[in-house]
Amino acid sequence: MSDTVVVGLDVGGTSTRALAVRLDGTRLGTGRAGGGNPTSHGADRAAGELGAALRQALTDVDPARVRAGTIGLAGAGRLLADPDGRAAFDRAWHSVGLRCPYAVHGDALVAYASGTAAVDGTILVAGTGAIAAGVRDLRLDRVADGHGWLLGDLGSGYWLGREAVRRLLAALDAGDEPGGLGRRVLTELLGSAQLAARPRDTVDTLIQTVTRRAPVELARLAPIVVAAAGHGDPTGGALVDEAAAHLAGSAARIRPAGDTTPLVLGGGLLTGDTPLAAAVRVEVGRRWPAAPLRSAGDGAAGAAWLAARALPEVTDAAALHDRLVPRTC
Amino acid sequence: MSDTVVVGLDVGGTSTRALAVRLDGTRLGTGRAGGGNPTSHGADRAAGELGAALRQALTDVDPARVRAGTIGLAGAGRLLADPDGRAAFDRAWHSVGLRCPYAVHGDALVAYASGTAAVDGTILVAGTGAIAAGVRDLRLDRVADGHGWLLGDLGSGYWLGREAVRRLLAALDAGDEPGGLGRRVLTELLGSAQLAARPRDTVDTLIQTVTRRAPVELARLAPIVVAAAGHGDPTGGALVDEAAAHLAGSAARIRPAGDTTPLVLGGGLLTGDTPLAAAVRVEVGRRWPAAPLRSAGDGAAGAAWLAARALPEVTDAAALHDRLVPRTC
Repeated sequence: MSDTVVVGLDVGGTSTRALAVRLDGTRLGTGRAGGGNPTSHGADRAAGELGAALRQALTDVDPARVRAGTIGLAGAGRLLADPDGRAAFDRAWHSVGLRCPYAVHGDALVAYASGTAAVDGTILVAGTGAIAAGVRDLRLDRVADGHGWLLGDLGSGYWLGREAVRRLLAALDAGDEPGGLGRRVLTELLGSAQLAARPRDTVDTLIQTVTRRAPVELARLAPIVVAAAGHGDPTGGALVDEAAAHLAGSAARIRPAGDTTPLVLGGGLLTGDTPLAAAVRVEVGRRWPAAPLRSAGDGAAGAAWLAARALPEVTDAAALHDRLVPRTC
Repeated sequence: MSDTVVVGLDVGGTSTRALAVRLDGTRLGTGRAGGGNPTSHGADRAAGELGAALRQALTDVDPARVRAGTIGLAGAGRLLADPDGRAAFDRAWHSVGLRCPYAVHGDALVAYASGTAAVDGTILVAGTGAIAAGVRDLRLDRVADGHGWLLGDLGSGYWLGREAVRRLLAALDAGDEPGGLGRRVLTELLGSAQLAARPRDTVDTLIQTVTRRAPVELARLAPIVVAAAGHGDPTGGALVDEAAAHLAGSAARIRPAGDTTPLVLGGGLLTGDTPLAAAVRVEVGRRWPAAPLRSAGDGAAGAAWLAARALPEVTDAAALHDRLVPRTC
């Protein structure tokens, strides 16, 4: 059993991470490459990054010893429905000498599996976007939000950034002095917190600055909002509380009241020790007081565990999870 | 005095309208051309549409008799700050034989002037976008919202359409049957109210359909929302009430409590006899019970009045307003 190797991959919009690990938990190699989301980057480029991350992870591993693999990526369903995309991923897989089969799952399932070995539960993710999903027998079941910046992603990093700009614009319209968060947003976007002689000129400049960029870049302001909340800024605190309510509300849309299965918090905004993570824990604890709360960890390790648990020699999937997935909380 | 002719122009994103009128109120000609917003279409194209509308309006008018003109357009400030744009408008003006000076004002001021002759007041507009502005001595003073679809336009047609799609997505996420408004939105966007076997597939198709188009096209759903509210649909009614609260809130940002100057309602969503217009009247009446409420009328006539009132022979600007601007409420 300790000779058996599995491979896990976590393919995100900004980076692709790979892990080769033995079933006894020995990490044999890791790899990292650029963003590989097939929806945003095209399947060929995504497959290229996948191959690069795999090649790194397998530097000291005989690919013939790898018995199973799992790839987690956003838009997994779309990839599987596209023969060309699937073929590109097959080529990348085989190009590094792998001959075992692999499974493709949504990134939300891989994030879930990086936080718990329970087969049923809920994953709630807030990063640039936001999504909540039910997990049933380790498959994604019902999904809430994940609707993208234009129509959804309530409580996400994008949402926090956009709302911070909105509050600033409203304050300028009303002739109010920007508060602490507003001044930080001004500095970040315009290079200075100094207002123009006519505040409306600052409003126009802010709007032009934001609309020149891709809307999703508003998510870059999220750390400023969260930090402001941490320093007691009232606007930042209000936005963080509102975001937490949105996120818990999305989870409530697909998770019954009284559910006691684990709830895993994932994404950059919920896995750290941030005011938003704390506020979400409060909201979630209020709605589901008996639910174990977990933090998503290393997605590539979660993917590796998903690949390994189906192998015939695995009899205790929970113990395997303890070995393969580093505990984060 | 009755020989004196003035010209008014209302330059919007989808149409340009021109009016040539005598000070006694005799309408000598009207013209209509395509959208001429210099911000969205470029100053040259905007100037071309301006010239076309002017030429039509002046078919039976000796341009030498025209003594003054006013152009109302969105983004007037940006045009005036751009020498090339200003030159293009000058050329269009002179190309039809006009030799009098002309003034350029924001479309919000022209909408205001089409509803009242009072020199101080407030204009609140909801069409595709939404803006509130104070008017002081017939100049735009403080402005609230008008921040565009990405960052603002709360309560606008864009906002109503986007929120209608959001409510539908939330219902589908929750596994609820779409209500009456939801079914109408499905039919409008997907051609049928029939859900896919997996509701998430309908969610994905909706998101793809909306994101393939320009975001602002969500405003096309606004009439459906307003009509649903009129038929007693609870979601439509809630959205209309929320939009009205947003619009009144924008006005409150720039209009003091207790202000008794006129408040003019403009834009396609507020000038008709719609549930949104009614809801805004209620909200506004609650906040400013003593304020006269007016409806914006013919913007080109409002612009013509703004041009005419500064002429030396005009002694009673209010009486002139009665002659030049058809009453709409």
